[in-house]
Amino acid sequence: MTLNVGVIGAGIMGADHITNLATAISGASVSYVADIDGDRASAAAAAAGARATTDARKLIRSSRVDAVVIASHDSTHAGLILDCLEAGKPVLCEKPLAPTVAECREAVAADEESAAATGRSLLSLGFMRRFDPGHRELRRHAQSGDAGETLMVHCISRNSTSAPNATTASAVTNSAIHELDTIPWLLGSPITEVAWHAGKRTTAAPGGLHDPAFILLRTADGVLTTLELFLNAQYGYTTQCEVVAERGTASLAEPALLAVNAQRSRSTEYPEDWRPRFADAYRIELQAWIHSLQRGEPSPLATARDGLRAAQVAEAVIAAAGTGLFTAVDYT
Amino acid sequence: MTLNVGVIGAGIMGADHITNLATAISGASVSYVADIDGDRASAAAAAAGARATTDARKLIRSSRVDAVVIASHDSTHAGLILDCLEAGKPVLCEKPLAPTVAECREAVAADEESAAATGRSLLSLGFMRRFDPGHRELRRHAQSGDAGETLMVHCISRNSTSAPNATTASAVTNSAIHELDTIPWLLGSPITEVAWHAGKRTTAAPGGLHDPAFILLRTADGVLTTLELFLNAQYGYTTQCEVVAERGTASLAEPALLAVNAQRSRSTEYPEDWRPRFADAYRIELQAWIHSLQRGEPSPLATARDGLRAAQVAEAVIAAAGTGLFTAVDYT
Amino acid sequence: MTLNVGVIGAGIMGADHITNLATAISGASVSYVADIDGDRASAAAAAAGARATTDARKLIRSSRVDAVVIASHDSTHAGLILDCLEAGKPVLCEKPLAPTVAECREAVAADEESAAATGRSLLSLGFMRRFDPGHRELRRHAQSGDAGETLMVHCISRNSTSAPNATTASAVTNSAIHELDTIPWLLGSPITEVAWHAGKRTTAAPGGLHDPAFILLRTADGVLTTLELFLNAQYGYTTQCEVVAERGTASLAEPALLAVNAQRSRSTEYPEDWRPRFADAYRIELQAWIHSLQRGEPSPLATARDGLRAAQVAEAVIAAAGTGLFTAVDYT
Amino acid sequence: MTLNVGVIGAGIMGADHITNLATAISGASVSYVADIDGDRASAAAAAAGARATTDARKLIRSSRVDAVVIASHDSTHAGLILDCLEAGKPVLCEKPLAPTVAECREAVAADEESAAATGRSLLSLGFMRRFDPGHRELRRHAQSGDAGETLMVHCISRNSTSAPNATTASAVTNSAIHELDTIPWLLGSPITEVAWHAGKRTTAAPGGLHDPAFILLRTADGVLTTLELFLNAQYGYTTQCEVVAERGTASLAEPALLAVNAQRSRSTEYPEDWRPRFADAYRIELQAWIHSLQRGEPSPLATARDGLRAAQVAEAVIAAAGTGLFTAVDYT
Repeated sequence: MTLNVGVIGAGIMGADHITNLATAISGASVSYVADIDGDRASAAAAAAGARATTDARKLIRSSRVDAVVIASHDSTHAGLILDCLEAGKPVLCEKPLAPTVAECREAVAADEESAAATGRSLLSLGFMRRFDPGHRELRRHAQSGDAGETLMVHCISRNSTSAPNATTASAVTNSAIHELDTIPWLLGSPITEVAWHAGKRTTAAPGGLHDPAFILLRTADGVLTTLELFLNAQYGYTTQCEVVAERGTASLAEPALLAVNAQRSRSTEYPEDWRPRFADAYRIELQAWIHSLQRGEPSPLATARDGLRAAQVAEAVIAAAGTGLFTAVDYT
Repeated sequence: MTLNVGVIGAGIMGADHITNLATAISGASVSYVADIDGDRASAAAAAAGARATTDARKLIRSSRVDAVVIASHDSTHAGLILDCLEAGKPVLCEKPLAPTVAECREAVAADEESAAATGRSLLSLGFMRRFDPGHRELRRHAQSGDAGETLMVHCISRNSTSAPNATTASAVTNSAIHELDTIPWLLGSPITEVAWHAGKRTTAAPGGLHDPAFILLRTADGVLTTLELFLNAQYGYTTQCEVVAERGTASLAEPALLAVNAQRSRSTEYPEDWRPRFADAYRIELQAWIHSLQRGEPSPLATARDGLRAAQVAEAVIAAAGTGLFTAVDYT
Repeated sequence: MTLNVGVIGAGIMGADHITNLATAISGASVSYVADIDGDRASAAAAAAGARATTDARKLIRSSRVDAVVIASHDSTHAGLILDCLEAGKPVLCEKPLAPTVAECREAVAADEESAAATGRSLLSLGFMRRFDPGHRELRRHAQSGDAGETLMVHCISRNSTSAPNATTASAVTNSAIHELDTIPWLLGSPITEVAWHAGKRTTAAPGGLHDPAFILLRTADGVLTTLELFLNAQYGYTTQCEVVAERGTASLAEPALLAVNAQRSRSTEYPEDWRPRFADAYRIELQAWIHSLQRGEPSPLATARDGLRAAQVAEAVIAAAGTGLFTAVDYT
Repeated sequence: MTLNVGVIGAGIMGADHITNLATAISGASVSYVADIDGDRASAAAAAAGARATTDARKLIRSSRVDAVVIASHDSTHAGLILDCLEAGKPVLCEKPLAPTVAECREAVAADEESAAATGRSLLSLGFMRRFDPGHRELRRHAQSGDAGETLMVHCISRNSTSAPNATTASAVTNSAIHELDTIPWLLGSPITEVAWHAGKRTTAAPGGLHDPAFILLRTADGVLTTLELFLNAQYGYTTQCEVVAERGTASLAEPALLAVNAQRSRSTEYPEDWRPRFADAYRIELQAWIHSLQRGEPSPLATARDGLRAAQVAEAVIAAAGTGLFTAVDYT
């Protein structure tokens, strides 16, 4: 049984999802593509042998669509989720769940109401790092206790260049949001307080963005996590994470295909952005979602509540930014 | 359109192919499984929602089967290939094409005859390294000429332990066969002469196997390739390849998910065997084969003729083994 | 002209200095060894062909001693320095200059008074990392500006096990003190404010020591430096430092002689403690000191004032420890 | 007691030895420098506070000279060695002992005759790799048997560029000569037969040099050693060696001070030539030689006989070059 998936948003992420669903995922095909840019919708749809529309709601309600992927602008997420729930269709929404805590709450409420009625949540959230083989192995290692209890975690998140309109706040809600989800998932413990400190500001950052920043996260288990967040690192994209435990540490290996000797140096390559680094994670995540739908099993992806919690932590980080102080996360 | 694939052989490789086709490949499902061991066939079939048989020929002729994967014992390959060709069904045969050059020739002849009649070859060969992202990037690098012309290639092929009945000859036909296919593919030049030298023999090798061995390959372009072939290296599985060119070298990076600090050392892990190392390659290869069938395009996999050539080189290596001399490869 | 050096303290560091001076340094010999443990003094002296005493002041005043190395207990440093200055003898004092800021001030005052009188400082301080080839190359790289301005620095300092009487304060004054000296030297900018945060506490730490800790340092140039300080990391000794600049980063490579493949892993070794890691640094530092004395040139080692400044920063870190706040360093 | 050393030859290696002896070696000073270029001799001597001459024999006979280092042209080695032996002075001769086997034999005979008369050999040979910490650790590892018996060894020797007059033969006698000495020292077993194979020839090599080459060495213990010898590798200098044993392998780690992230890559640096790679080895070797002289102990350096054996193996490699066959080494 092949699931017909409708994809909303045919930008970079949406296009990647369409390609995956159409050519690399077992049990799925792309039946419908929606984008506010009709040409973009048509082009993406044609490549996948799907219909196109500029009206996302039409896609959601179509009988040709069994399940929906939302990869449109963040501001549209909450509304589209509600439409999918109303239509009773399983939906995978790209992170973030929504740009504001209020909207996240609304999505969670709708999802939990619908789940209470039908016995099953329809809403999954695309925190793909949970499906990255490296992150999974790191979590397995940390939770095995082989090296004793975890004491600290050090993360580094560097991008080549930020969006021109990036701000200190959007760096948290769009980029650091991954670690805000990954850390509680890795440790099995919620983030309770956060702090934000400024690095010396790079001249490469746009006006509203203090870049790099250095974020501290304290989880309920007492572990201190540190995060260097640097959107304009220029040299390339890298995601690093080291778990420091009582008898040893484990860290993500930097993936590389080749080691090259040339011009007096030995080198391995960094990707320009996050997509090659997490190509496997996206594919595995999509496949896991499709499998769960085929089998009628609960989705193994992040939940709406995970998305809300990450948004609440992000809100606390942004609030902490001016103060230099640890700020408690408000989960109420 | 979903292709119904029949898989012959439900051993280690066959089982992996069945799992891939049933759960990780777009556009395919497993409809039939054959194995001489009926219980093994049934178990594998059940997991994939397919039928089971002990009669491979029944599978091949079944109307439920659009295409066939052969992963049964090497000695059965040639016969099953002929049956598939007769039935007009596309077939992906695991390497080697056949254990003897004579049988390989027969398969090539049948395939080329059938292709001449129908306009399209039905036979693909499973040299999965051609789909390994590392090998592909290494080939791209070598053929780009960025570092000048290639001068030498160094390969290392180490397994933890050999099969108990492994011999000096089977080490070539079963294991080194990968490099015998990869090197001409990497360099775009056929192997013209070969030599075989003994390392000091490990006490871990079974009686008929001289292990490790060191093989030299000369290609028509003048490049000298060296290959350490060590089936009982014990510490783990590794495949290494360094291309030495005029202005620099490139080598496969050793894949690893984590770097672990513990007990006075920093370490990364080796797999026990080749399957984790080439899991992506197998999946990508299968997907590429399925896509080509769906689109009616020529298969991008290795051909029967590639398999024959590798077998001819293997024969020359085995002939060279006693002599210490370079031996010409006979392609006639 | 060979300089006759008297070494005070024949413990671990003193013994290493004696061995270096007697067997690996050009232009020096060890003429006298003092230790409160007479047997230890005699044993060390005999190996170097020197005299022994339990009376450090006798050594300092001896006409057989041209220059003095102080490697005795930290509490004796300030007093012995004053004796050396009084005797007009060049002295290399191991870090720390003294355990308290007050004593450091006294040593600085005495040295500067003596220097004002004679035109040359007699007092050098043993911050050996300034002579570690890796640290020197990192500093050269940072100050070259090749990667733009430095924005952040990340340091990690891990020991296998702390002394049984180690405390949260002594971890700063004895171990972190190296970074408190290195960072201003690396950046060319003084530390202006500091913060201290607790990691989750390892069960391996003695009662008075909160371990690991995480220290933040802000220098006058705006750079934020982070330091993981972990005395009971158990797995081995490591010193890491990454300089993050506008267009790239540079980090100390972890020294290793061999890469070993065994038992499913590829590994390199960590030393048990700091001595193998900094053996070259100690030797190069001693040699640089001896050369400067031979040539009548100013010592290229750290100065008493450097030692005072590091002590003042350490005092601020300890004061900050309870508070979670950034605390200004008082240099007055 | 400081030994007064006379250094013959003030070229690259001689100048390095002079600097070491004058500034970095305990118990030595440079008293005399000889070079056929009087200006070069004077300049080098002045920097070290020594006398200069163009007459090496005058230096050897001078009462100001306790011991001699020969770093002049290879063709002068044998003659100067005889002069030193006649003068009864300890001598460290840079490798090779002499360019021809005949001259090597002469030097060995003279040394052994002198040793028979005086009870002690005066002649040491500068195969500095024996003092490289990496090579020593690799040897210790191999001889410990921790990984079982050694089965194969893989060496790679790459230089940036060859001398313009380098030949296929001189590549062996000047460059590969290091491995020809190191391998028997590492394995504790003499080389019994050798083979030479051509890589595809780089366009960067001068006319008389076939570059790269690939050499096979069989030792009496049955181990097969392989050596890629590439003098015009262009990208930098590297010396690699991996010992393959029954249960694992060990290889030299590539030394580096920094890891640099920049422009989409992570890189470590290669030196332009062998001197930075072996700076420690040269210093440690010189220091060991001086210590042995001070203590009246046998020199721990390579002997004249080691030099003769390496020359005999080199002769066999050169003889093998045209043939493609294994050629026995003639030690008679």
